[in-house]
Amino acid sequence: MMKATEKAEILIEALPYMRRFYGKIVVVKYGGSAMNDESLRASFGANVVLLKYIGLRPVIVHGGGPQIGHALARLGVESSFVDGLRITDDETMEVVEMVLGGKVNREIVSLVQKGGGEAIGLTGSDGGMIQVTRRISEGRDLGRVGRVVGVDPEPIQAVAESGFVPVIAPIGVDESGVTYNVNADEAAGAIARALRAEKLILLTDVEGVLNTDGVLTPSLTSEEAREWIRQGVIRDGMIPKVECCAAVLDEGVKSAHIVDGRIQHALLLEIFTDGGAGTLITR
Amino acid sequence: MMKATEKAEILIEALPYMRRFYGKIVVVKYGGSAMNDESLRASFGANVVLLKYIGLRPVIVHGGGPQIGHALARLGVESSFVDGLRITDDETMEVVEMVLGGKVNREIVSLVQKGGGEAIGLTGSDGGMIQVTRRISEGRDLGRVGRVVGVDPEPIQAVAESGFVPVIAPIGVDESGVTYNVNADEAAGAIARALRAEKLILLTDVEGVLNTDGVLTPSLTSEEAREWIRQGVIRDGMIPKVECCAAVLDEGVKSAHIVDGRIQHALLLEIFTDGGAGTLITR
Amino acid sequence: MMKATEKAEILIEALPYMRRFYGKIVVVKYGGSAMNDESLRASFGANVVLLKYIGLRPVIVHGGGPQIGHALARLGVESSFVDGLRITDDETMEVVEMVLGGKVNREIVSLVQKGGGEAIGLTGSDGGMIQVTRRISEGRDLGRVGRVVGVDPEPIQAVAESGFVPVIAPIGVDESGVTYNVNADEAAGAIARALRAEKLILLTDVEGVLNTDGVLTPSLTSEEAREWIRQGVIRDGMIPKVECCAAVLDEGVKSAHIVDGRIQHALLLEIFTDGGAGTLITR
Amino acid sequence: MMKATEKAEILIEALPYMRRFYGKIVVVKYGGSAMNDESLRASFGANVVLLKYIGLRPVIVHGGGPQIGHALARLGVESSFVDGLRITDDETMEVVEMVLGGKVNREIVSLVQKGGGEAIGLTGSDGGMIQVTRRISEGRDLGRVGRVVGVDPEPIQAVAESGFVPVIAPIGVDESGVTYNVNADEAAGAIARALRAEKLILLTDVEGVLNTDGVLTPSLTSEEAREWIRQGVIRDGMIPKVECCAAVLDEGVKSAHIVDGRIQHALLLEIFTDGGAGTLITR
Amino acid sequence: MMKATEKAEILIEALPYMRRFYGKIVVVKYGGSAMNDESLRASFGANVVLLKYIGLRPVIVHGGGPQIGHALARLGVESSFVDGLRITDDETMEVVEMVLGGKVNREIVSLVQKGGGEAIGLTGSDGGMIQVTRRISEGRDLGRVGRVVGVDPEPIQAVAESGFVPVIAPIGVDESGVTYNVNADEAAGAIARALRAEKLILLTDVEGVLNTDGVLTPSLTSEEAREWIRQGVIRDGMIPKVECCAAVLDEGVKSAHIVDGRIQHALLLEIFTDGGAGTLITR
Amino acid sequence: MMKATEKAEILIEALPYMRRFYGKIVVVKYGGSAMNDESLRASFGANVVLLKYIGLRPVIVHGGGPQIGHALARLGVESSFVDGLRITDDETMEVVEMVLGGKVNREIVSLVQKGGGEAIGLTGSDGGMIQVTRRISEGRDLGRVGRVVGVDPEPIQAVAESGFVPVIAPIGVDESGVTYNVNADEAAGAIARALRAEKLILLTDVEGVLNTDGVLTPSLTSEEAREWIRQGVIRDGMIPKVECCAAVLDEGVKSAHIVDGRIQHALLLEIFTDGGAGTLITR
Repeated sequence: MMKATEKAEILIEALPYMRRFYGKIVVVKYGGSAMNDESLRASFGANVVLLKYIGLRPVIVHGGGPQIGHALARLGVESSFVDGLRITDDETMEVVEMVLGGKVNREIVSLVQKGGGEAIGLTGSDGGMIQVTRRISEGRDLGRVGRVVGVDPEPIQAVAESGFVPVIAPIGVDESGVTYNVNADEAAGAIARALRAEKLILLTDVEGVLNTDGVLTPSLTSEEAREWIRQGVIRDGMIPKVECCAAVLDEGVKSAHIVDGRIQHALLLEIFTDGGAGTLITR
Repeated sequence: MMKATEKAEILIEALPYMRRFYGKIVVVKYGGSAMNDESLRASFGANVVLLKYIGLRPVIVHGGGPQIGHALARLGVESSFVDGLRITDDETMEVVEMVLGGKVNREIVSLVQKGGGEAIGLTGSDGGMIQVTRRISEGRDLGRVGRVVGVDPEPIQAVAESGFVPVIAPIGVDESGVTYNVNADEAAGAIARALRAEKLILLTDVEGVLNTDGVLTPSLTSEEAREWIRQGVIRDGMIPKVECCAAVLDEGVKSAHIVDGRIQHALLLEIFTDGGAGTLITR
Repeated sequence: MMKATEKAEILIEALPYMRRFYGKIVVVKYGGSAMNDESLRASFGANVVLLKYIGLRPVIVHGGGPQIGHALARLGVESSFVDGLRITDDETMEVVEMVLGGKVNREIVSLVQKGGGEAIGLTGSDGGMIQVTRRISEGRDLGRVGRVVGVDPEPIQAVAESGFVPVIAPIGVDESGVTYNVNADEAAGAIARALRAEKLILLTDVEGVLNTDGVLTPSLTSEEAREWIRQGVIRDGMIPKVECCAAVLDEGVKSAHIVDGRIQHALLLEIFTDGGAGTLITR
Repeated sequence: MMKATEKAEILIEALPYMRRFYGKIVVVKYGGSAMNDESLRASFGANVVLLKYIGLRPVIVHGGGPQIGHALARLGVESSFVDGLRITDDETMEVVEMVLGGKVNREIVSLVQKGGGEAIGLTGSDGGMIQVTRRISEGRDLGRVGRVVGVDPEPIQAVAESGFVPVIAPIGVDESGVTYNVNADEAAGAIARALRAEKLILLTDVEGVLNTDGVLTPSLTSEEAREWIRQGVIRDGMIPKVECCAAVLDEGVKSAHIVDGRIQHALLLEIFTDGGAGTLITR
Repeated sequence: MMKATEKAEILIEALPYMRRFYGKIVVVKYGGSAMNDESLRASFGANVVLLKYIGLRPVIVHGGGPQIGHALARLGVESSFVDGLRITDDETMEVVEMVLGGKVNREIVSLVQKGGGEAIGLTGSDGGMIQVTRRISEGRDLGRVGRVVGVDPEPIQAVAESGFVPVIAPIGVDESGVTYNVNADEAAGAIARALRAEKLILLTDVEGVLNTDGVLTPSLTSEEAREWIRQGVIRDGMIPKVECCAAVLDEGVKSAHIVDGRIQHALLLEIFTDGGAGTLITR
Repeated sequence: MMKATEKAEILIEALPYMRRFYGKIVVVKYGGSAMNDESLRASFGANVVLLKYIGLRPVIVHGGGPQIGHALARLGVESSFVDGLRITDDETMEVVEMVLGGKVNREIVSLVQKGGGEAIGLTGSDGGMIQVTRRISEGRDLGRVGRVVGVDPEPIQAVAESGFVPVIAPIGVDESGVTYNVNADEAAGAIARALRAEKLILLTDVEGVLNTDGVLTPSLTSEEAREWIRQGVIRDGMIPKVECCAAVLDEGVKSAHIVDGRIQHALLLEIFTDGGAGTLITR
């Protein structure tokens, strides 16, 4: 059993980090295993509330791909595909909004509140917050899938400045008021930039960025990261995550983290220990 | 064709009402036909924004019964019934939250924004706003159906004081963080009381309160209203609406309105003309 | 008789204008027929109050030439003239101040208050607001007639930010504290610039700016306006008004209007309808 | 010639008074000789500004009887009398407003500004500030002469809180917006009460309150003052002044002063020396 | 070696305490061994800063008896004694002020700053903060030893609200401006009351309150505490400490703690663990 | 005996100075005779409070050389010297801090409070305010003697904005938290620059700056002052004072004064009379 004094010493060890990050905004992309495993979920809620009490200002952006797929299947909505990518037609988008805004978002608000905080759920269409245009990539029209062109920070600030943790579903809105599905990493990055956040943290289902030997790299610069992409060291699904990180660093966010969400308290470990729980990318 | 000067005179006629209600909070329960007819929907959005520009502070609370029924049917969720009342089990509640929070609420936010305003959607579980206990009526447990025991106005104020129109889904949360379905009229009434609103307006699918001759009564006192219930003049579905109105008047709301939502611009007419578009209940 | 719904629709038609001008300052030069006809006076008071409730911030600057002439005649103060222009000697100036500050200004304050607003009358010497030098034009000294060299917006803001409509008499003060008569159009223009107003509106006794065919021009640019002056299309008393408008547009005021004050509700019509009631000049 | 050190000592002697009155409101009724003698006028302006820099918050209320009489004579407006009292008919009232608001008020604003302060002139009808009813005394209707029934402090505070000295003409307004002439002492008293002033100072043309031997009394209580009225020691024109003082003391003003305005710097002397320059009345 | 996850869990365990005490004022009397042992000193500084980052608002009041004795000895100031109590004459008081204000206070400010916070040192005579009268106990005049009769919280708030930790030396001032030595426990108690603190924590050189068996009592009520004094269970030097605690509980402080300052991190342990490090006294 | 009116006139004479300096910060270096003579001390306290009530914002920085020497002698601390300069070793520095922070500073706080103001004593290590490095001059290490490299104005503003007069002891702190003795003139200059003060006033024991004939110069520019140093007109101890003044003028302070502190009320005389009591240096 741990002695009381040891506990106190651990609190004290966190002090330099508390000082450094006091009052700073941290945008956390929450998704993957950390969102699906019951025990990891509870630890996430508690972590977020702890960040808040220690003086940071957390903003949560979540995904929800698996839940959307599950709901589409259950409703018997068939998806058509172009080059293996699912087309988001109007019927699909209706399900996306219900699942992201009415289920996933609500569950995360509830997690934070069970952790002892007060949260307010938002979607990117509240107050016209996440502004998008229809994404046309390589000539393919995927339907209501949006590319973020701007973020109005006011709805987030309205909520955060009254003491609530904002929990944001990745839905965007175009100039005519039509809503679009948005990639959650992309949304989190755009929000971090708009809020001039201190940190962007992407919770993932991998250890972090691996080097040529397949070993976790605790930190690298955005320049190195881009070089590794060119060299093929960073591949596949990790590429957009690393590019998202490098982009926010270019626009004033101080650090970006790709963190292993499968580890208990990954969020706290990455912020409050030198070892961390993933890869830290800095300018 | 109307002459320009006549238009100006109509603006001028509204002036005494603008003066009287300047800066006051108006809670509007939005539901029924006004929510389903395309043309009425557009006029509702524009009305809400006009209220805001003229200096009132509108707060919208919406229902969504028909949409829930439709979604349950589509998902093949079978409902069990006790004495003809549907039991809201966990599976049903999941659908309720998705439909209210992820579909109906989002559509109303969009209506207000198309009308030219900025809205933020909330559900009653955001920030622990609508506090409920499980409703046990006449010994029957209907599952996750809640009775409102309190409203924390802070999440609504956070949103409203930053210039956004709050749009609230009628979901409540108990002390353990479990969510419940709540009657929208009841939620609207509790919110009006907590905000010390000037007015509560219930948009319905009837003309208003009818007297013994079946003729619309433009106004009556809460005492008369209660007498009419005792005498059986007010019957059936109108009884809880009138009781809700009488209750808010007891706790400081200045006036309560049962308004015919099937009329274009019913909201503006009731607020800015003597004739109105329904029944006004005062203390 | 107009139906209720039509009335509501007229309110709704004004909505885009309300949105556009919300919170903006509008400086209105009030004079001529609009100030002397009883029915036009009442409509002016109501118009100003409506602007305020709809969210604009009106500031009134008034003239008073006829009333001054009448008072001088009654008091038997004889005026001397140079080249047909009246010399404002000290005795005349005493009458000017009494009539502008003690009679005309008070009547307009009363008009606004009868319209349902709260107004505070100021003269340009309050708080050293309208700063002038003695106007010497073409070698003629006209006595205590001032040229505006600066406006301190603070006295106006003190009054306006507490919710009152400022009503300002066109009197200026030089560095030694001596007061001067100032042209009301010139005062209104200088005040509009100092307040960074959205609009300057000059109420006149003519239709607006007429083109070469003598027909009303609904709008023109300041460049066109200056060209028309050079070409002699704009002549006589209209020249200083148009020059005043063009000058304020050069210094950040968004639009300037020369409006036919002989029309009922000219102010509302010009602001809230496309047709308007005069000529709009923009950059 | 006074030595520098002596000068410094006099500043130091004023220190306890500065401390005691810091931030307090002082309402000064300005009239009589102090307003008509050129040298006394200049000293009044400087005194008011000094009060302001030393941290008090002066509010000036002025009369203007002689100037009104002079203007009526010049305009040939004949007055009718009832029991020796002048009837204020509409024509007379027009002159009253012009003289008080357009001449006397402006001159005092100018005095304060020449003294180095910033002043804004108000009349009691600005913002509906001085609320009156028609005064009917002993069955006689004197026309537009008002009795003060209330004071709205907001217009005064709007001006004072922005750093300007309010200078107020004694004109009142009834519920229909009709203006009335008001006794300046009465107006000053009502304003002192509404502002919860520290002091009310009435500048007069006499030494102060005299005792039975005809000798100046430096101070007395409101009870003693009322007794002296009953005993006939205080007589004639001094009675309403003393009653005005006693009344404000009953409603929270801390001290009332009847001061000899014929003495240079009477205002400073009464506030900053024990000897003073008149009679101090306390509860 | 402790694993990272265990560290995170310890942070999480502190969360309920953080929530409960967020934004609350904690007054800490700092003295004895905790002030003299080098390692305990460093841990005290870090503890105070941690409290601050976690959202509490610590206020430090210190003693300094040993240091005063040491300085008197070194300066060769001889003390006279009455019934074994040292007389604080003027010469002694001069040393008291130099040691408390110029040495002990400065060292604690430095401790907090080395711990990573910003502190400002105050003595009880700053801004007339600790108001005292000369303490005459049982007929003996001990010289300049004061009894606290009031605390003006403003100087403390000025410092704390700007983000600094106030560190206060126990010196009081009487109405004539004469300074007195004050018992540090008494000063801390009076400050806790004046600030409406959540907690008062007295760091001592004993385990806490012992029961009849000489065993540490983790908690007791103020009623029990007073009963134990009557029964002689609590004796000697512990009596005034317990009485001080009981008194602050009577006046609104929520809890009082007598804590063993000889334990590392005693402050954190008492606030953030159930076990604590001393005796908790509640109402 | 001076007549009352004369007293009022002297107050009025100070008015232009009050206007000019209203709300401005004045940093006063207090030392020498003005600090040691009982009558001059009392006048200093009253002067500071008067400045505050008249609307200036005084900040006091004090020295204390003689008191330090006296205490060192009494404690038998022997000083070693290098080239005639005293070495400040750790033992000496302990005495310096006790005397400056615990005695001299406290006495000046008391002076201001006896003068009727509220003061808070600070030392330059509070909140890390006066930042220094070890001063190595001409290869000699004098021990803990610091050179000011920066001033954080926040601790001073925290105190001043709450209405207290800051009284600052000239102690600095380096990056490791070690404290150093600082020259009081140098500290006052650095504080004046950091606060963007209007004036820096150095109270000295000489008349002011003397010209080549040994006669007091009432004013000179910083350019002239530097020329006089080059020419040897300004010599010895006056050189660093004049250089300090010239330096603050280069960085935005409007005027610097070297004032004869041996004259009663020297502070008031220099600020509020043209004659002054020393030498004014301007850019």
